Amino acid sequence: MQHTTKISLIAAGIFCLNVIHVQAQRIQSVRFSDVTIHDNFWKPKQEKVATATLNACIIQTEEKSGRIRNFEKVARKHGEKHEGIYYDDSDVYKAIEAMAYSLKNRPDAALEKKADEWIDKIAAAQQPDGYLNTFYTLTDINQRWTDMEKHEDYCAGHLMEAAVAYYNTTGKRKLLDVAIRLADHIDATFRVANRPWVSGHQEIELALMKMYHLTKEDRYLKLADWFLQQRGHGYGKGKIWDEWKDPKYCQDDIPVKDQKEITGHAVRAMYQYTGAADVASVNQDPGYMNAMTAVWEDVVYRNMYLTGGIGSSGHNEGFTDDYDLPNGAAYSETCASVGMVFWNQRMNSLTGDAKYIDVLERSLYNGALDGLSLSGDHFFYGNPLSSIGNNARNAWFGTACCPSNIARLVASVGDYIYGKSENKIWVNLFVGSGTKFQVGKTNVPLLMETNYPWEGNVKIKVSPSQKVKYALNIRIPGWAGNTAVPGELYSFIGAGNEKFEVLLNGKPVNYQVEKGYAVIDRTWQNGDEVEVKLPMEVRQIKSRKEVKANEDRIALQRGPIVYCVEGADNAGEVWDLLVPENPTFNIQKSKILDESVISVQANLLKVEATADGLNVKTKPQLVTAIPYYTWANRGKGPMQVWLPSKIKNIRIAE
Amino acid sequence: MQHTTKISLIAAGIFCLNVIHVQAQRIQSVRFSDVTIHDNFWKPKQEKVATATLNACIIQTEEKSGRIRNFEKVARKHGEKHEGIYYDDSDVYKAIEAMAYSLKNRPDAALEKKADEWIDKIAAAQQPDGYLNTFYTLTDINQRWTDMEKHEDYCAGHLMEAAVAYYNTTGKRKLLDVAIRLADHIDATFRVANRPWVSGHQEIELALMKMYHLTKEDRYLKLADWFLQQRGHGYGKGKIWDEWKDPKYCQDDIPVKDQKEITGHAVRAMYQYTGAADVASVNQDPGYMNAMTAVWEDVVYRNMYLTGGIGSSGHNEGFTDDYDLPNGAAYSETCASVGMVFWNQRMNSLTGDAKYIDVLERSLYNGALDGLSLSGDHFFYGNPLSSIGNNARNAWFGTACCPSNIARLVASVGDYIYGKSENKIWVNLFVGSGTKFQVGKTNVPLLMETNYPWEGNVKIKVSPSQKVKYALNIRIPGWAGNTAVPGELYSFIGAGNEKFEVLLNGKPVNYQVEKGYAVIDRTWQNGDEVEVKLPMEVRQIKSRKEVKANEDRIALQRGPIVYCVEGADNAGEVWDLLVPENPTFNIQKSKILDESVISVQANLLKVEATADGLNVKTKPQLVTAIPYYTWANRGKGPMQVWLPSKIKNIRIAE
Repeated sequence: MQHTTKISLIAAGIFCLNVIHVQAQRIQSVRFSDVTIHDNFWKPKQEKVATATLNACIIQTEEKSGRIRNFEKVARKHGEKHEGIYYDDSDVYKAIEAMAYSLKNRPDAALEKKADEWIDKIAAAQQPDGYLNTFYTLTDINQRWTDMEKHEDYCAGHLMEAAVAYYNTTGKRKLLDVAIRLADHIDATFRVANRPWVSGHQEIELALMKMYHLTKEDRYLKLADWFLQQRGHGYGKGKIWDEWKDPKYCQDDIPVKDQKEITGHAVRAMYQYTGAADVASVNQDPGYMNAMTAVWEDVVYRNMYLTGGIGSSGHNEGFTDDYDLPNGAAYSETCASVGMVFWNQRMNSLTGDAKYIDVLERSLYNGALDGLSLSGDHFFYGNPLSSIGNNARNAWFGTACCPSNIARLVASVGDYIYGKSENKIWVNLFVGSGTKFQVGKTNVPLLMETNYPWEGNVKIKVSPSQKVKYALNIRIPGWAGNTAVPGELYSFIGAGNEKFEVLLNGKPVNYQVEKGYAVIDRTWQNGDEVEVKLPMEVRQIKSRKEVKANEDRIALQRGPIVYCVEGADNAGEVWDLLVPENPTFNIQKSKILDESVISVQANLLKVEATADGLNVKTKPQLVTAIPYYTWANRGKGPMQVWLPSKIKNIRIAE
Repeated sequence: MQHTTKISLIAAGIFCLNVIHVQAQRIQSVRFSDVTIHDNFWKPKQEKVATATLNACIIQTEEKSGRIRNFEKVARKHGEKHEGIYYDDSDVYKAIEAMAYSLKNRPDAALEKKADEWIDKIAAAQQPDGYLNTFYTLTDINQRWTDMEKHEDYCAGHLMEAAVAYYNTTGKRKLLDVAIRLADHIDATFRVANRPWVSGHQEIELALMKMYHLTKEDRYLKLADWFLQQRGHGYGKGKIWDEWKDPKYCQDDIPVKDQKEITGHAVRAMYQYTGAADVASVNQDPGYMNAMTAVWEDVVYRNMYLTGGIGSSGHNEGFTDDYDLPNGAAYSETCASVGMVFWNQRMNSLTGDAKYIDVLERSLYNGALDGLSLSGDHFFYGNPLSSIGNNARNAWFGTACCPSNIARLVASVGDYIYGKSENKIWVNLFVGSGTKFQVGKTNVPLLMETNYPWEGNVKIKVSPSQKVKYALNIRIPGWAGNTAVPGELYSFIGAGNEKFEVLLNGKPVNYQVEKGYAVIDRTWQNGDEVEVKLPMEVRQIKSRKEVKANEDRIALQRGPIVYCVEGADNAGEVWDLLVPENPTFNIQKSKILDESVISVQANLLKVEATADGLNVKTKPQLVTAIPYYTWANRGKGPMQVWLPSKIKNIRIAE
């Protein structure tokens, strides 16, 4: 991580903390279960998740990879061997969590029956003292809680998340009771007993906060905070510490509240800071916010891909040096982008700052969504920003965290659209959907209509039962102004011609801008309609010069969507293109398989050999760019997000 | 396959057939068990096979892929499920065959105990009527012998080969008796019962010929011939015929004796013709030789890689159109190169023509040997002639034919060095080794000393117990003259400066040249030493213009070794090189891991971008080329065998 700017960052962090301390949890997210999505973008994706994705999870869990069989084996007590990897239990839990969200959107008796079946098997595998982990129970239960890397608490956390989700959807307590017994076992074993434990893969902290919010049991808040505070004191024992000697890998080199730089494994980091934000939103601890402000800037200003993906290295599934963002070798794990969505929502809730939603939106529509095939049943674990044609989505993985993670995110995407706070309604994402607010004692139904992300017109209609005064805070995306990403790691080339506009009942309206939101504070009545016009020009983007991988390269973005060029649209080849100065762009309605998208036609150059084969020349070439998240759905082929404007390295191809 | 030259090819075939008819089986191979290899090239490889490769086979067979467990399950009769693929039994047999060869070279009580253990399990899985196949026995034995593609006879063939090998090494009959019962079951079920059966994967024919030679039982010769003669009459039933509708895939579209072109699956074809040659060598059937002569030319003149690899397409693991020899996409299966070694040895034995050994040597030192890592425990299934850096050897495969195939070939490579016929001693390959001939009643020990393939000096010392007259036939490799490969699919650029020389006791000697052999027919006495000097210049090779993949490209060969350039020796990049006119070459002793090799330093050109990034220029570049078979042993990296002399397709790399 870069060190030169640390002092000012810390100062900024401290400044923020003061603000936060008094305003913590200013925004409460409207839960997806209170939002009805009816658009042409997310609704079909939720349908695919409900069918194809969950079906893939079920087939893998039950038949192919045998993850559910470990629970059955524990219950049978026949001394049978554990199958798979020690963290496989978590995939079953995450699948149940995704099923729970999907069942809320789209009831399905057969799916609920399946979840109930699995829950019975999980419950039957719980030990009398509340412990639940098939790996240790089937190998040697005397070894439990000895290697902090072995994901026992991580699996427990995912069980808790699943339990809360399933209870919220169905009202059934069975899994929740299992989760409570397990959480209490962990609380008694560690916090109450004052026995050190550093989670080797953070996750339980945010899960415990969900348990806390559901049960109101204070001990879960305390335990979540306890887990966070265990870190950075040299308590670690197990593979990460004793074999790898790398506590940084799991952000255990210094206490969480002292962390200023992003390090180590990306998913672990995202889950940790999500949990820390959840704790801070309740106990208003300034230490967490202080650390998170600095770390967030280190992520977004120096270590994030244009797609919102993070963790550039497959070696540690995580972070390396600042600005080390290779495209073809990008790891950019799907789960890390999902984690970016989680964490940035919390940061927005804590601060009311739209810049966090800018990042959330970028990760959601690009880095995360790319993890899921258009068919819903194939997945990317890593999400590179270029390909020589050797990348294909897989039906499953040995380590299968990503499929159920993207499934639960898509199924619960309604969580990220709206927020509420006292006398304020927040519109964060632009998704055709409806919800209902309560302002004072007045119900305020709200309906949003838009073809976002393909079109920039968004109509927001409110229907309060009586006139009511509140502020409608509508996010003005950073990209709708002249900020591609906060911190300018990526910036637009040239100024945009179109402007962000807001109309009220068809006429221009005055609004204040506060932290990236257009604030319309007035008395609203039934039928009032706000229309937002987002500038949907195709914009060229360049990187900071420190990003060597993108030197003399540009990328294209339109709205929140990052584009790429893929062989399938360009006669099989995209590595012989050059971007001229001032290229022109047109847009076109297109289909990638059954996905309706806007594609971009760009007038670029193609480099080809001269007739004697000893030199090269360029010729104009009309190139088609497609949304990044849709690539690799039509077989293997070359792809690039960042297109060169100059020749750097040459390959003479076959 | 090309059709224009068929008439002349057929004519040539008929001509050959007459020659063969009277001279069939003119050369008998000296078995590896009578040859002691002591050189620095093959002996260390046999050590690696005896340890690392066989260990990998054992671990996979017993622990990881569970192939041996199927035999145990059959014996237990508990109704347990078959694991793996229906042809997996064959891998166990081939591993035993490789163990048998290795045990002959290098006794190892523990290894022999392991083989005996497996043999007990195999024997216990044989059915009372002699049938032996774990797939059908564990699924539904009533379905046996219904789908001709299901490899029952293929697995049986590999059992027979293993049984013969193990008997030859150890004198133990247990596996041989199993093989005899199985062969007799098959003979009774099909040939005797006159029930049609087209082997879906040829192999049993050559195996039955081994059984015939060992047992002298005429029925095995008859059954081998019967299997061959079943083909091409529309008898096929099962997946290949009924689902794929592609009898060509297994060379069943026309009778074997009428075949003139190479088609379909490469390994099936090689095993078929090996079996046909074995039958023809005994019954002197001109029909097989006639067909094989035409097919061989179709393979070598139009469908073989410079590495001696065949079967360019992964789609059918086999042949496509004439001259369709892509480099990066080359399938060139290791097993197909092993099959080329088998078949070409038989063709040489039948004809006494050294051109077959030229091809054998090319396949052995390049296409086949590339299948085995220098460490001995990783494998290539396909052997491409270029790589963008995405190829790595694997520890094992789902379909794992290649590891044990290359193991058995290397362990028995002594089979291919010498031949004998009446009053003639044949030296085919140049390998530091010793053997003993019998000429009339005189023992003729022979000792060959050489650092081949790195050096061209070969000393052959004979020590007859008394003066004795015979012809010593020493192969003059085609590449030692001006023929890169028979048929000129690949040819040298420019004439060589060095010449093939033969000295007798230090002085030039006159010799006749007969079918590629230097024939020194004289009376020999104890201590006579022949010295052969092979021209070891680095030669540039070009392809026939019909091979579009190699248009404006050259390759390098030195002795029998095909070279490639790999990133590991060339600053990570080999796709930006151009070959100038008249490049110069130097050689150098090098190490690739622990493998001592001769590398080639070539003065080539490097293409790089001009300063403005809008054009390219070339600069001189000293490039290191290494033996093709040693690539991909130092991690993934780009590689090319065929280097361009002109720019064709450009890629602007990251």
